[in-house]
Amino acid sequence: MYEINETHDPNLKSWVESANDPNTDFPIQNLPFCRFRHPSMDVVEEGDYHPGIIVGDVVLDLWYRSWWADTPAPYEFRGGAEYDGVTPVQIRNETWNEFRKSVSNSLSEAAHPKTREAMGKDMFPRAECEFGLPLFIGDYTDFYCSIYHATNVGSMFRPDNPLLPNYKYVPIGYHGRASSIVISGTDIKRPHGQNRSDAEKPPVFIPCKNLDYEMELGFFVGKGNELGEPIPISEAEEHIFGVCLVNDWSARDIQAWEYQPLGPFLAKNFATTISPYVVTMEALAPFRTPAFERDTDDPQPLEYLGDEQNRKFGGLDINLEVYIQTEKMRNENIEPHRLSLSNTKDLYWTIGQMLTHHASNGCNLQTGDLMATGTVSGKEKSERGCMLELTWRGTEPIELPSGETRRFLEDGDEVIMKGYCEREGFRRIGLGECRGRILPAE
Amino acid sequence: MYEINETHDPNLKSWVESANDPNTDFPIQNLPFCRFRHPSMDVVEEGDYHPGIIVGDVVLDLWYRSWWADTPAPYEFRGGAEYDGVTPVQIRNETWNEFRKSVSNSLSEAAHPKTREAMGKDMFPRAECEFGLPLFIGDYTDFYCSIYHATNVGSMFRPDNPLLPNYKYVPIGYHGRASSIVISGTDIKRPHGQNRSDAEKPPVFIPCKNLDYEMELGFFVGKGNELGEPIPISEAEEHIFGVCLVNDWSARDIQAWEYQPLGPFLAKNFATTISPYVVTMEALAPFRTPAFERDTDDPQPLEYLGDEQNRKFGGLDINLEVYIQTEKMRNENIEPHRLSLSNTKDLYWTIGQMLTHHASNGCNLQTGDLMATGTVSGKEKSERGCMLELTWRGTEPIELPSGETRRFLEDGDEVIMKGYCEREGFRRIGLGECRGRILPAE
Repeated sequence: MYEINETHDPNLKSWVESANDPNTDFPIQNLPFCRFRHPSMDVVEEGDYHPGIIVGDVVLDLWYRSWWADTPAPYEFRGGAEYDGVTPVQIRNETWNEFRKSVSNSLSEAAHPKTREAMGKDMFPRAECEFGLPLFIGDYTDFYCSIYHATNVGSMFRPDNPLLPNYKYVPIGYHGRASSIVISGTDIKRPHGQNRSDAEKPPVFIPCKNLDYEMELGFFVGKGNELGEPIPISEAEEHIFGVCLVNDWSARDIQAWEYQPLGPFLAKNFATTISPYVVTMEALAPFRTPAFERDTDDPQPLEYLGDEQNRKFGGLDINLEVYIQTEKMRNENIEPHRLSLSNTKDLYWTIGQMLTHHASNGCNLQTGDLMATGTVSGKEKSERGCMLELTWRGTEPIELPSGETRRFLEDGDEVIMKGYCEREGFRRIGLGECRGRILPAE
Repeated sequence: MYEINETHDPNLKSWVESANDPNTDFPIQNLPFCRFRHPSMDVVEEGDYHPGIIVGDVVLDLWYRSWWADTPAPYEFRGGAEYDGVTPVQIRNETWNEFRKSVSNSLSEAAHPKTREAMGKDMFPRAECEFGLPLFIGDYTDFYCSIYHATNVGSMFRPDNPLLPNYKYVPIGYHGRASSIVISGTDIKRPHGQNRSDAEKPPVFIPCKNLDYEMELGFFVGKGNELGEPIPISEAEEHIFGVCLVNDWSARDIQAWEYQPLGPFLAKNFATTISPYVVTMEALAPFRTPAFERDTDDPQPLEYLGDEQNRKFGGLDINLEVYIQTEKMRNENIEPHRLSLSNTKDLYWTIGQMLTHHASNGCNLQTGDLMATGTVSGKEKSERGCMLELTWRGTEPIELPSGETRRFLEDGDEVIMKGYCEREGFRRIGLGECRGRILPAE
């Protein structure tokens, strides 16, 4: 699972030239999964996308796959016979990894010219493609696993008691809304909601005033489990296909008023944006780290949440960047401004622990289910993964290179998230981008 | 929408004799939708069910529907051509109602013998059928709309402040888990979870000790809305196809420890049971009531949540009963014992308000989405819709006719929920049953 093999060899180069660019997110060492379409493609109905793999600036179409007739299919097909273009029924990592290895061979410089020729016919320029959600997301669960984020937010609302007593025992999570998950690039309309910022008066139903983003890492379930059958921590990673970027848009004023006692609801479910590429666990193998190092007086994870393997390799070293570009900045050709750089190493719980906890009561996870870590923040101010933290609830506005300031997001603002992994001796890989621009309320 | 027509005529009788039994839940005035299969049917794969309508003791198959060639199809078919057996893409009430009227005609005593003959070929004995979830449930949302339930539960946990300040303004809700919704009759395995009933010690991971049910009314979205497009309260009911019974199984000990700050998670998502029949809003027309009458010092609903029509007809007069039968009772042939009788009239918010609130931030609802009201409790002790309330957190055990007592559910207990509507001058209709039996933890 955490094994380095020939597909991670930093010297491996591709015959797809753009994959060898040192700045690309998608060298041959990455090969993320996606669903896409190209204007030239013969698509039957809206929502119909082809499965694909990204390499450099091109998308390799997995639909016709004449060039991989001899390799195993990366997932079982619905009905046994045909891929329906929407819902893989199951993705098994061992099958995927074998498939990925074969694709890596065929894309490498050493590939036979005939392979190159056949494959080349199934390639499309990435910039011309439109991307769909990479998998059908049945259920979406959002966790709250950055202890820095939880402590910051907690201390704004409960100064004396920022971290609740369950935090160091329970990977806190809640169910999100699957239907309103959208792909990077989708505009986000400022939502209306109940606002009671003046506690002396009744609430009013108005456009959200404190609109925020949250920088999160998402991960997809590959192999599911049956209802009533928990997933041991030792097997958790076999059920995780890969990761993406998640912007969990948040309406802070709505949240503050609605969230007790059952948690966030309309403050979150108006939209969640994800990046279109699933960077697989296999591609992430070189970037595994030990689980978060707990303070000596912190409790150890309960037995069902802890094992040696998770402790040693359960963490992920993924850098996460958030940029903002306001309308004024766009008009004046000012580059997006970086708001934060955080890292998933700082998460208190590993993604394996989140998944195992989720299924520990027998809850059935299904292929395509999306989980997200919650806002990924670090210790430093520059590592805070949302505006609520960065501006300390709006009290410390951010100054932008355009001379503007921001307490929260304004109409026309575009939030751009990026993710990448770097490690000495390995090729840098990236997660691509997750973008969204705020439209005014109607 | 709330109009009484000839399909509600109490004197209307069917040529299906069992539909004329005064005790049936399914007279010709009801005609709920379902998905089912019969051992004799030619089903292609697991999960493949036919759409059907219940009348008396039979299920009318809507699959071949030769007998309704001239009536409009009750929903648009995926891909335009064929019904895929799983996912109607959209259900429009106006189309359904027209269809239902035609089915009612064909099932009535006045029907032509040839119609009877054709229809009779598409009928199966209900007792021999197996039922699936009536619609594909993309997202599941659970509300908290009984003020008596919220007050009872609140006063156990916050005696000084049982009802939070948002309750009378916000139809409080949260996202539930869609994947673990199961059909009536499915056994429920007692879940494991973190329990910290002893605050002096660390939590332990053990089988749930305080397993509970919650008696709720569910309702299905028929017609969806686009992301970013709220649904005005005046149009809310056009989006609701019909109702079912919901048992929102709850692990109270897990809930107490995990639920802050983001709400219930593993305490709820191990299973939710629903009855297999969708009793349509059309069938419920005679049983509409005014919305809950608020105390004179209660705030009126904010404008987006209130209109004249909702105030006059938004409520529902549905009786909800909960029964228990323990293993001992089964062994001794003791009939199930009724634990409570409550009524949806007592809900503080109408289902139209719940739906409009849900979409008020632009959240997109989709055909098949399930919403539930939260535990339906009334003023009286006999109207409390869960054990937490009935036994006041286990402090006042229930005595059963077998001589047993219950604080919470024990292994082998079966919970049976029923629902029905009665009104002078109309035919009684029922919602059928929602059953589930507790299996021991593994």
